[in-house]
Amino acid sequence: MNLGHCVHRIDTAGQKVIGSGPRAEVFEIPYDRLLIATGALPIVPQEPGFDLPGVTAVKTLENARTIKRLLQGKNVADTVIIGMGYIAMEMTEALRARGIGVRMVKPRPGLLPWLDAPLSDSVRQALEAHQVALHTGFSVDRIEQHGRRLKVIDNHGETFETDMVLVAMGIRPNSGLAEAAGLALGPSRSIAVDRHLATSSDVIYAAGDCADAYHVVTGQKAWVPLALRANRAGWAAADHVCGKPVSLQGVAGTGVFRIFDLEVARTGLFASEAEKAGFDPATVTISTQSRAHSYPGSSPLQVHLVGDKSSGRLLGAQMVGREGAALRINAAAVALHAGMTVEQFGQSDLAYAPPFGPTWDPLLVAANQLLKAL
Amino acid sequence: MNLGHCVHRIDTAGQKVIGSGPRAEVFEIPYDRLLIATGALPIVPQEPGFDLPGVTAVKTLENARTIKRLLQGKNVADTVIIGMGYIAMEMTEALRARGIGVRMVKPRPGLLPWLDAPLSDSVRQALEAHQVALHTGFSVDRIEQHGRRLKVIDNHGETFETDMVLVAMGIRPNSGLAEAAGLALGPSRSIAVDRHLATSSDVIYAAGDCADAYHVVTGQKAWVPLALRANRAGWAAADHVCGKPVSLQGVAGTGVFRIFDLEVARTGLFASEAEKAGFDPATVTISTQSRAHSYPGSSPLQVHLVGDKSSGRLLGAQMVGREGAALRINAAAVALHAGMTVEQFGQSDLAYAPPFGPTWDPLLVAANQLLKAL
Repeated sequence: MNLGHCVHRIDTAGQKVIGSGPRAEVFEIPYDRLLIATGALPIVPQEPGFDLPGVTAVKTLENARTIKRLLQGKNVADTVIIGMGYIAMEMTEALRARGIGVRMVKPRPGLLPWLDAPLSDSVRQALEAHQVALHTGFSVDRIEQHGRRLKVIDNHGETFETDMVLVAMGIRPNSGLAEAAGLALGPSRSIAVDRHLATSSDVIYAAGDCADAYHVVTGQKAWVPLALRANRAGWAAADHVCGKPVSLQGVAGTGVFRIFDLEVARTGLFASEAEKAGFDPATVTISTQSRAHSYPGSSPLQVHLVGDKSSGRLLGAQMVGREGAALRINAAAVALHAGMTVEQFGQSDLAYAPPFGPTWDPLLVAANQLLKAL
Repeated sequence: MNLGHCVHRIDTAGQKVIGSGPRAEVFEIPYDRLLIATGALPIVPQEPGFDLPGVTAVKTLENARTIKRLLQGKNVADTVIIGMGYIAMEMTEALRARGIGVRMVKPRPGLLPWLDAPLSDSVRQALEAHQVALHTGFSVDRIEQHGRRLKVIDNHGETFETDMVLVAMGIRPNSGLAEAAGLALGPSRSIAVDRHLATSSDVIYAAGDCADAYHVVTGQKAWVPLALRANRAGWAAADHVCGKPVSLQGVAGTGVFRIFDLEVARTGLFASEAEKAGFDPATVTISTQSRAHSYPGSSPLQVHLVGDKSSGRLLGAQMVGREGAALRINAAAVALHAGMTVEQFGQSDLAYAPPFGPTWDPLLVAANQLLKAL
């Protein structure tokens, strides 16, 4: 293990990597097979003030230590979080649990634009019920230090004063080395890999958040940097290099997060994605209950399904609710892998008992409704 | 609607049903199409004492009223429940919640014999932790009234005194009318129906707990009297009779129940069922955690999978845990409908976030283990 060694270049002709070690000494390491597992980098703008001490991305262990130190070292009463994605949501929940004020800002309209409007409204309500301020249309121009406080200023001059700024604007593939080595790139400049995790060079593999994947619904390449795929791709690359045949199907785009008392889950395509991929989507959104109506403790559960009018295929599913959303999405994810039609999926023999859902599982109710629109 | 009308006979040649009404008057009702939806009957032995006032089955609304009356009318301190199935479990939980003692008895060995041993051990431990006494090998010979108390006596003379006896020994299809009319019967003497819910007579349909279904794993007929299939079959029969083409795939045998703080879930075949159906089963049982290891509140989650050595197909899944078992089983149920191999299922893009499970969903961990045994 060569910790502290930074690779500067891949010499594909010479089959070696060239870089500098901890004492700035140049090294060259030859390879028979090379795995690029460089992950992703947080998106941090180059605008003024993003390097101030109270401003940090949320990506590395070092970032986490910085946040802890800020929280311990000075009286952080409020924060601005730039971004409204998964990581921004998780940080919001953690900060609110400590009683710290949170203001979330992003330049484009729409909280969670990939989520169907009634479902994202529920998320908005949960955030507002926990005193989180949401500001879309806020594009950060600069951050300034004013005494102990920071000023986050947008390009119209609107200003929020705060004690800490978290940058959770998303990530990009750390694919610079691969690109410089002439390897083919995929969506979002991720490293293009085949089902065996081989790049465009047959002795170089890539796995993790730096690499792309096939999407099981579109059959096209996609960049979905999430933990399971990254982990699975690492194992598969190792298996393949060691002579065990492995061929990965790809990703369905399944993702979940919790925000306060809500579970938010998705898999597959949302309607505009489906259109872009050449499908003719129909959608349905229903609101049911998480338990049988006779059973105490039930809460609303929203289900959104997307199907293809021409083939009848199920293309995607989304759920929001206090319980029963996160794990329920897996049934739809498996249906996407299997290429099921909405009708086939709607005939699934899903579990029923009063504590866990209505007789017809919410996904089945939605599938029955969607069938009418196909 | 002819309430209080009891059909005694189906005249298939004359296309009419014959019976007696509320004032014992004979009636005849002609039909173009007939739906038999007679449900199931509780199994209640003919042995002495099963008709005593403190003894009741657990099937009808009237049974529920009887139980309520018994609980209100006299001081019920303890009960004997005959049977250890879903209904017995639900009654046990309800009675223990009221502080009433429960003794469960059944003639054959094995609590939940369809459940893999380490999983049924967890259920046993949960029952015992809630002071439920379990007596397998106890075959009730008779029940006797002794003053205000009942004596439940087995065929070796072993005796339990109690205040109330619940008979939850299972159900049988209420198929007598159909059998007498010469209609073909399926497993357990349920009424045989095709994928359109038609019986062996093409103008007579049957739906609900009285009728059989195709099992999607075996392709054979099965009798799985559960709520979703019963409900779905009723809708499908109506659609079919009204000219809308419906063809039901069948059941995967998915079932869940909660007992105290445990969720118990199953779908598909268990190993001995798989063998009987002509498969060459391999199994795996693992114990994982319900949440990511860094996330508080995790609890053990057991997963048992059954696969077929010759085809590699997934045949069944079972889960027991405090959380994450009931809804998780649906992913495996959909995989059974799709006829997925264990390898295909193991590549599913299932949801991950720390509050809901480890990076590799417990079902995926089990599938990876099972692959090694196939």
